[in-house]
Amino acid sequence: MSLVKIIEYEQASAEVRVVYDDIMKTRGVDWVNNFWKALANDPALLARVWAQVKQVMAPGALDPLVKEMIYVAVSATNGCEYCTYSHTAAARKKGMTDAMFLELMAVVGLANQTNRLANGLRVPVDPQFIPCEARSCRRA
Amino acid sequence: MSLVKIIEYEQASAEVRVVYDDIMKTRGVDWVNNFWKALANDPALLARVWAQVKQVMAPGALDPLVKEMIYVAVSATNGCEYCTYSHTAAARKKGMTDAMFLELMAVVGLANQTNRLANGLRVPVDPQFIPCEARSCRRA
Amino acid sequence: MSLVKIIEYEQASAEVRVVYDDIMKTRGVDWVNNFWKALANDPALLARVWAQVKQVMAPGALDPLVKEMIYVAVSATNGCEYCTYSHTAAARKKGMTDAMFLELMAVVGLANQTNRLANGLRVPVDPQFIPCEARSCRRA
Amino acid sequence: MSLVKIIEYEQASAEVRVVYDDIMKTRGVDWVNNFWKALANDPALLARVWAQVKQVMAPGALDPLVKEMIYVAVSATNGCEYCTYSHTAAARKKGMTDAMFLELMAVVGLANQTNRLANGLRVPVDPQFIPCEARSCRRA
Amino acid sequence: MSLVKIIEYEQASAEVRVVYDDIMKTRGVDWVNNFWKALANDPALLARVWAQVKQVMAPGALDPLVKEMIYVAVSATNGCEYCTYSHTAAARKKGMTDAMFLELMAVVGLANQTNRLANGLRVPVDPQFIPCEARSCRRA
Amino acid sequence: MSLVKIIEYEQASAEVRVVYDDIMKTRGVDWVNNFWKALANDPALLARVWAQVKQVMAPGALDPLVKEMIYVAVSATNGCEYCTYSHTAAARKKGMTDAMFLELMAVVGLANQTNRLANGLRVPVDPQFIPCEARSCRRA
Repeated sequence: MSLVKIIEYEQASAEVRVVYDDIMKTRGVDWVNNFWKALANDPALLARVWAQVKQVMAPGALDPLVKEMIYVAVSATNGCEYCTYSHTAAARKKGMTDAMFLELMAVVGLANQTNRLANGLRVPVDPQFIPCEARSCRRA
Repeated sequence: MSLVKIIEYEQASAEVRVVYDDIMKTRGVDWVNNFWKALANDPALLARVWAQVKQVMAPGALDPLVKEMIYVAVSATNGCEYCTYSHTAAARKKGMTDAMFLELMAVVGLANQTNRLANGLRVPVDPQFIPCEARSCRRA
Repeated sequence: MSLVKIIEYEQASAEVRVVYDDIMKTRGVDWVNNFWKALANDPALLARVWAQVKQVMAPGALDPLVKEMIYVAVSATNGCEYCTYSHTAAARKKGMTDAMFLELMAVVGLANQTNRLANGLRVPVDPQFIPCEARSCRRA
Repeated sequence: MSLVKIIEYEQASAEVRVVYDDIMKTRGVDWVNNFWKALANDPALLARVWAQVKQVMAPGALDPLVKEMIYVAVSATNGCEYCTYSHTAAARKKGMTDAMFLELMAVVGLANQTNRLANGLRVPVDPQFIPCEARSCRRA
Repeated sequence: MSLVKIIEYEQASAEVRVVYDDIMKTRGVDWVNNFWKALANDPALLARVWAQVKQVMAPGALDPLVKEMIYVAVSATNGCEYCTYSHTAAARKKGMTDAMFLELMAVVGLANQTNRLANGLRVPVDPQFIPCEARSCRRA
Repeated sequence: MSLVKIIEYEQASAEVRVVYDDIMKTRGVDWVNNFWKALANDPALLARVWAQVKQVMAPGALDPLVKEMIYVAVSATNGCEYCTYSHTAAARKKGMTDAMFLELMAVVGLANQTNRLANGLRVPVDPQFIPCEARSCRRA
């Protein structure tokens, strides 16, 4: 029950197919998921978001599996159904076990709890947590 | 400008000091941060939340640094100022570099963006993302 | 699977029918959507929320279509399924094209991303952004 | 550092003063808090929001103190600083003790935790939780 | 379409059954809802979350029905479908009438509205709302 | 009290200065705001986010002022302090009057209220709101 058309490969313009092809090649899969088929209604949006996902989720200072788990953490926090399913699937493909998934959820649940305790009690930030730059101190 | 008293070690009951002592010992530090000093107004709440943090954040299927970064991801998503400062400090202590922190933020930002694109366009979940248990299929 | 009864026109009290009639007349339609039929379980709540919607969404300093798009932006940000469907439909009826809808979503996605970058990095507000009233300055 | 002018009683139009007077009289206080002084930049918005607060927060099926605590629960969940301070103050005035406040926060924290566990694991709703109306069953 | 297995009593380990039995006994029911059957994939998580729910939701400074309504308020604010159904059912079982539920929703709706007005206009916190401890004043 | 260094133009690398220069030129201003100076700690992130903002916020199917107001709506909903200040300033520069700002806030407040009423009552989506593509119907 999408609010825009789901654009299949066969119906897609050449411009859109280039992105679809790159998604499949980058991920080593032979299908494109609905998220991209919905974005394809605006080819510039599709290209822009995909370029960003491709760059941000690539190996870097953080491991790709860690990045997928962070994505799941945000999606569960926001209650995004589509994103929780899709990024949990992606994380599993990259090696997330049941034990890792449940531990991830335990951290997400706990963080959402203590976030509200801190917000609700209006706990003042300890000066020790503020980085040196901001406090004009010197790191030895 | 806390909404409850910040209970210092000197003012704390024996029951509360047991928790403060365990926090300092577990973390290898000689001070207790304000979050716990605020919770200490309800010693049962303090003990319960600390027991949970101690258990969930310990090494397990996930690395403690990964857990701290997940905590930061949730806190930034929720806009919790106290938690963002405290868990970023904790993550840095466990080895998070500037490059890792910025990459973490890039993933958090991206996930928050695509969460809303999926929600706003009401993209239907691809059957491929639904685990076998739920679809009554068999893993080979 | 509503948590309260969906009250149809035929079952509605005279007090509720007055609101239903006004909704249909104001919008130039011959049916009432489920949101109001759910609120009708508390006729005072129904009347109060409808009076507010009628007043706030009317033409004013902002164009009604712009208002509907702002409504969609908030609903997509909050992940409210019902509201995203209903206000997207309303916006389309007021002239929102596919191109406008996708551009709206692009802004919503981007804002949700940069909101978290600003929150997560704890970027200090530039004094230039604080209005004169608050800074005791003078506009020339 | 408000984004609109804070309109003091002395500067206020007659239309605005009527609302300020009603706020003070209804609450039995001799001052008006900043929230209303900010809304006063749009007298219709001020009158509409105040009429709503006055009606919704009055005694009804729920006790006014319970309502204030629900308000605090929502405000802490959303991380609204102003609202957390103002409604905690209001709840204290209506009799909320330290013990009640901390217990309220414990429930808020817990609910925010389990909300994400349910969202993240995508737990299916048990049919037993769906009311009879929706399931076409009969209450004996 | 859960992301983890729903573990039925018959399939559960002895460790998990102890928790299931305690849930049923504490609540005076003869079935366990899906939330716990999903958490059971991590027996330590199950035990920890249940211990917390059992302790926090028990009678204390606040009435159990009030606590359930606060739970519903948070769940509706976060848009958690599972939690809204399950805790509304629990609140109804503890005596929440239709009138109370609708009044609860009215407060939740209102708080979500004024939270954004305060956030959007950046209304400064009135010093009167800041408790004495924080302002170094004295309560007579 | 930023969590990363605020990188001034003088300290910036050539790569970062290119972006700073483009920001100033595109906006017709002679200064760069802190958001970008914080992102500059990761030059690739800076370039990527700026490219996106530049493209998305440019005139298109929607007017740039409308886009800024949508940005403010999202930022107020999320409670992002930095973003609310910066995009309100941007919207004012593009012509948003006090009346428009207050009307914008009225819509944002209302949408946040009805989002929770729909979520909390679990109102079923009316089939009339589901677009033809999804319902396999035909537009005449």
